[in-house]
Amino acid sequence: MNKIFEILIRTGISVKLSTVHFILSFLLFSSLFAGEHPNLFISGTEAQEIKKSLNKYPLLKKSYEEIKKTVEGGIRDGIEVPQPGEAGGYEHERHKQNYREMQQAGILFSITGEEKYAQFIREMLFKYAELYPTLGAHPLSHNQAPGKLFHQMLNETVWLLYASQAYDCIYDWLTESDRDHIETNVFKVIIKWFIEENAHEFDRIHNHGTWSAASIGMIGYAIGDQNLVEMALYGTKKDGRGGFLKQLDLLFSPDGYYMEGPYYIRYALRPFFFFAEAIERNQPELKIYDYRNQILKKAYYSAVQTAYPNGVLPPINDASRTMDITAPGIVLSNALTYYRYGPDPNLLGISAAQDFVILNGAGLKLAKDFSSVNSPPEFNWKSVEFTDGYDGKQGGLGILRMGKGNYQSMLLMKYGVHGEGHGHFDKLHFTFFNQGREVIIDYGFARWINIEPKFGGRYLPENKSYAMQTIAHNTVVVDETTQNGGDRREADAVWGERHFFDASDANVQVMSAKSNRHFPGVRMQRTMFLIDDKRLDSPVVVDLYRLSSEKKHVYDYPIHFLGQPISTSFECTASTQQLVPMGNSAGYQHIWKEAETDVEGTISCTWLVGNRYYSLISAAGKGSQVFFGRIGANDPNFNLRSEPAIILRSHGQDYLFANVIEPHGYFNEAQEKSENARPNINAVKIMGYDNEGSVIEVLGRNNLKWRIMVSNGDASEAATHSVIFSDHHYEWTGNYLVDLNAD
Amino acid sequence: MNKIFEILIRTGISVKLSTVHFILSFLLFSSLFAGEHPNLFISGTEAQEIKKSLNKYPLLKKSYEEIKKTVEGGIRDGIEVPQPGEAGGYEHERHKQNYREMQQAGILFSITGEEKYAQFIREMLFKYAELYPTLGAHPLSHNQAPGKLFHQMLNETVWLLYASQAYDCIYDWLTESDRDHIETNVFKVIIKWFIEENAHEFDRIHNHGTWSAASIGMIGYAIGDQNLVEMALYGTKKDGRGGFLKQLDLLFSPDGYYMEGPYYIRYALRPFFFFAEAIERNQPELKIYDYRNQILKKAYYSAVQTAYPNGVLPPINDASRTMDITAPGIVLSNALTYYRYGPDPNLLGISAAQDFVILNGAGLKLAKDFSSVNSPPEFNWKSVEFTDGYDGKQGGLGILRMGKGNYQSMLLMKYGVHGEGHGHFDKLHFTFFNQGREVIIDYGFARWINIEPKFGGRYLPENKSYAMQTIAHNTVVVDETTQNGGDRREADAVWGERHFFDASDANVQVMSAKSNRHFPGVRMQRTMFLIDDKRLDSPVVVDLYRLSSEKKHVYDYPIHFLGQPISTSFECTASTQQLVPMGNSAGYQHIWKEAETDVEGTISCTWLVGNRYYSLISAAGKGSQVFFGRIGANDPNFNLRSEPAIILRSHGQDYLFANVIEPHGYFNEAQEKSENARPNINAVKIMGYDNEGSVIEVLGRNNLKWRIMVSNGDASEAATHSVIFSDHHYEWTGNYLVDLNAD
Repeated sequence: MNKIFEILIRTGISVKLSTVHFILSFLLFSSLFAGEHPNLFISGTEAQEIKKSLNKYPLLKKSYEEIKKTVEGGIRDGIEVPQPGEAGGYEHERHKQNYREMQQAGILFSITGEEKYAQFIREMLFKYAELYPTLGAHPLSHNQAPGKLFHQMLNETVWLLYASQAYDCIYDWLTESDRDHIETNVFKVIIKWFIEENAHEFDRIHNHGTWSAASIGMIGYAIGDQNLVEMALYGTKKDGRGGFLKQLDLLFSPDGYYMEGPYYIRYALRPFFFFAEAIERNQPELKIYDYRNQILKKAYYSAVQTAYPNGVLPPINDASRTMDITAPGIVLSNALTYYRYGPDPNLLGISAAQDFVILNGAGLKLAKDFSSVNSPPEFNWKSVEFTDGYDGKQGGLGILRMGKGNYQSMLLMKYGVHGEGHGHFDKLHFTFFNQGREVIIDYGFARWINIEPKFGGRYLPENKSYAMQTIAHNTVVVDETTQNGGDRREADAVWGERHFFDASDANVQVMSAKSNRHFPGVRMQRTMFLIDDKRLDSPVVVDLYRLSSEKKHVYDYPIHFLGQPISTSFECTASTQQLVPMGNSAGYQHIWKEAETDVEGTISCTWLVGNRYYSLISAAGKGSQVFFGRIGANDPNFNLRSEPAIILRSHGQDYLFANVIEPHGYFNEAQEKSENARPNINAVKIMGYDNEGSVIEVLGRNNLKWRIMVSNGDASEAATHSVIFSDHHYEWTGNYLVDLNAD
Repeated sequence: MNKIFEILIRTGISVKLSTVHFILSFLLFSSLFAGEHPNLFISGTEAQEIKKSLNKYPLLKKSYEEIKKTVEGGIRDGIEVPQPGEAGGYEHERHKQNYREMQQAGILFSITGEEKYAQFIREMLFKYAELYPTLGAHPLSHNQAPGKLFHQMLNETVWLLYASQAYDCIYDWLTESDRDHIETNVFKVIIKWFIEENAHEFDRIHNHGTWSAASIGMIGYAIGDQNLVEMALYGTKKDGRGGFLKQLDLLFSPDGYYMEGPYYIRYALRPFFFFAEAIERNQPELKIYDYRNQILKKAYYSAVQTAYPNGVLPPINDASRTMDITAPGIVLSNALTYYRYGPDPNLLGISAAQDFVILNGAGLKLAKDFSSVNSPPEFNWKSVEFTDGYDGKQGGLGILRMGKGNYQSMLLMKYGVHGEGHGHFDKLHFTFFNQGREVIIDYGFARWINIEPKFGGRYLPENKSYAMQTIAHNTVVVDETTQNGGDRREADAVWGERHFFDASDANVQVMSAKSNRHFPGVRMQRTMFLIDDKRLDSPVVVDLYRLSSEKKHVYDYPIHFLGQPISTSFECTASTQQLVPMGNSAGYQHIWKEAETDVEGTISCTWLVGNRYYSLISAAGKGSQVFFGRIGANDPNFNLRSEPAIILRSHGQDYLFANVIEPHGYFNEAQEKSENARPNINAVKIMGYDNEGSVIEVLGRNNLKWRIMVSNGDASEAATHSVIFSDHHYEWTGNYLVDLNAD
């Protein structure tokens, strides 16, 4: 009712009561027709509640002040709607800033009722109404579906998704002719661009498709066009083969794991949750939050449960090395998950890291609960395995964790699907987190995101030629090639297979997976343990990587790290006078060969990262070699980062890499302290391996002797295995046996 | 009096009052003879004051608790006095830990009177009394004066300096036979080792000599041997040609700048201040704190005034890149300077960073004043020039600062003495701090300090072959050689010369220096400006490096940085298929040549560090080349860090490098934001240069045009200069003129 009078006052109409009645009836009708406003993200009631609660909940207040500061800055600096520019350039960034400021201004208008915010949005949309009809397809789209404001349609969908929220918030406040003007010259032109001229992009089962669907669905609700909403839900043909629901069906495994990996889900969470929330508010009968056994809840939890203890998302597949749980999509989903699926202290812990909540009923609830916890909340995830593939039968992702908070050790192994265009050829790849940082690293993408002089901030050629290649990862390379010959379609047709996963013992956790369709004729099985033995400084990784084939091959086992090589147990033959690339293709052309040494028997390489030493202790088979490599060859534009790697090379048909990665000691340069710079583990012995099982022994200081047996056949908790290697008889029941006190 | 009764109780003597009287008289006498105890660092009165104040001053309490935790840990773990081991090894570290724990236990005993602390020291010294007489010279001294417990005598002097303080604290508590035993079997053996068998090391005018003198002086006061004190003050021959006072005379410039640089002064501050404090307490008539116009005050202030805004000491000469103002020597001197020379808010600011105070009267005063300040104290140093050389006539060190706290930009130029054995061949070298970190860097030393597998943690061969060489620094190299042919004696005989220094204008600060005796037949003059122009994002460096000679030479101008090359204004010709070293000697053998390109006219190279871009914009003369280099060639043991450099190469007799270093823009990978990745400065033009002056113009976006004129003759504020270049007439008065709004 307030709004109606506001409108009357704004339009300067002086009226009698009967006239008011008439207008009331009219508005009531049109409101039913176009839906209540705002109806996408925040309701009038929520806005009033937030207004009342600002001084009660510090996190709410802080978030409000932050938004206010941004929008007031935008108002003060004046509105600018420039001609389109190149990716990452000033104009590109300006249009992004515009949609963010519009959306936030909408929220502020809802909460405060202050007209300056509504005017800001109106004026900006009017400027877009001037510009937009004059634009054709952006000329710099580079093989992507183009936008008009932006080089790719993807950015344009984001623009629409945000702008529709801003529009929703001032819908009632605008005059009908304002609305006509804006809808005709902005929204309807964009809508046509998306659903008619780029229907293929719209209907993709891909995060681009999700952004498209969400943006069209939301503008549909905003302008009261249910036809658009249906296209958003079921695809442009409304046959359910495209659209939001199909994306929910196919882009996640039944556990909620997103096929493209953590970096892309943090981005895709926005359209998924923004649109889901709009659906829930406008069509609660669809029960979107319950859809596919609450797939949205699982999607969110699986995303944040992949995070390293410091909040950074593991950069598997195309990904930056710094994206973390403070990303806007995670801020959004954290509150909505908390609100829609019920409270969870872990989500309060994530809020503490984010230090910001969204401004709607969900954010209010989170801020309120946050203010009532006594100690600073933390999040602590447990070891977990996620299945991959829409049916959950296409391998998975295993995560083993020991310890708490930033002291946690985390071992991640990837054995699921390829993940389409942003996927890397990296099955059985692992990363290792320790000491508050990723220490066995994933290179991430070869992209200097949004840095205009670096190919417009887009993916660089080196993303394909290096970052995606198998050798760029911590998984075995066969014959210096790449999995599936580097062919994405071929890789998408196969996946890893889970063998077993067991995190039930606090001191010995294990995951095992196979990959038989990634290198022709080569079967691979990787079993990774995280073992905590009080005689050692920190949990260690034990890695049994078995390869078998009918033919002889070259097997390369790479470890990528950041840090300084400290020592090797062997005389290392370094290339001191000349560096050449390690190979000609499959990523090897980008690695300078810094050292190459023949080795045999137990060897160790130690390097330093931060305040700790790390040693790779390996049972090197006959004819093995160790290489030290450094990224940077064949990189004329310095697009790659200069980072080191150790590569163990062996030759054979059947081969077992039996390695231990031991964090040890302490170094503090400023305090000039160093302890335990040499590893405690001093031998890894392979007792034998065949199709039944593998047996190794690990020896170290303080009489440490472990015997580790792993089943190589079909997984079974109950089966008993028996093998004889060098006249010794080994027997165990189940998938593995670890004896930490072997005789 | 308490102590006397304690002793009586401890020795189990049951006595009559008359006996007490007798003992009292005896103790009084012996106390006079040997001096009061404790008398080196803390007095009984101070100890009582501290005990009373622990709960009043949080910083005091925290420091006390920290010490207590360490010592209690030592008591709990049990005393271990192992046979000597190698540098950085377990035994080495154990002996270091022992002397630290002993000294701290002494302080705790003084404050609390709890006997467990005294017993801990007694027991440990008894174990040393068993071990020490059995030891000969340490076999691993490697050309240094050897210790017996440690590979070098230096460590042994530190041991004695700390042990003497511990001994001092329990002196009165020990029985006479305890003292006899300890003095005979530990201290007197060490003393003999130092003053008889290693008199040469003892008498050196060098930080090793200072440690020797201080340790002998302190044990002299502790055991009441004034003869030792005199040797400490005046040298073993007591002729004043060695010893503490001569060191105060010769190791500092009149401004207090220490010839070896910040890393070594933070180490040498300990013997200087520990011993000075002991002298003040035992021989106040020497007025040691007033000696040489309060040289100790100047020494401390000049040390901390070289620090970067983040507290890290610039790693000039042999130095680690992480040593900072929390080092123990700075903690010690900060309190003593505050106490002995009067309060200064900057020193409270340093205390805030240190978060710890020493436990004596000085620490008490500091903690008390610290507790009464309202806002968290900060330190903010101003631009400053220090003279170098004992007479202040051997060049100097210039520091320009703009901004506050971690936002400060700091430009440092080194144009003083070589600095003896730890000196680098780096005259006219500079470093630049911006964005909370050193961005144009000094490599520091080639040493993995205390890391046993890295050559026992000692200086590595690469320290001489790379880190000390001129090319490892940001100063011009002539003909790919090193200053003074890399000969330390030759370099110690010459120094840089100050030309002028002016930090009076907040927006234009400048320093200029010459070096005419470092490359045979080549005169060099470097003038560095720090200029703040509101049209730019951050203060920029303008660098005019002039060389003149009778003969033709190759001039290399290197810039060392950490970070990623982003773009160049020219087509860069990178070595993509093979890397070879840039040269064969003078450090060039350690630099891989990553790119080499012919250039001419204004060129720019941009790289990324942290959240900001940096561009080197240069007026490249005819026939110039640009190299991209990376450290690591000829480094068989991976002793060097892999770091990039840009090298501008020119050829000629007379040449002027006219360069601008501009920090610009913003990058945040996690937020995926990038702004202003290209420099604002787009041209540097050399109008001309001769023996009278140099004139350049700097052009940039937003109509930026600067004209900069520098005098090349003798420095004078009053002289008027007039030059004609290409028919243009330029005139200015004084050493320089900067017009930020040139027509």
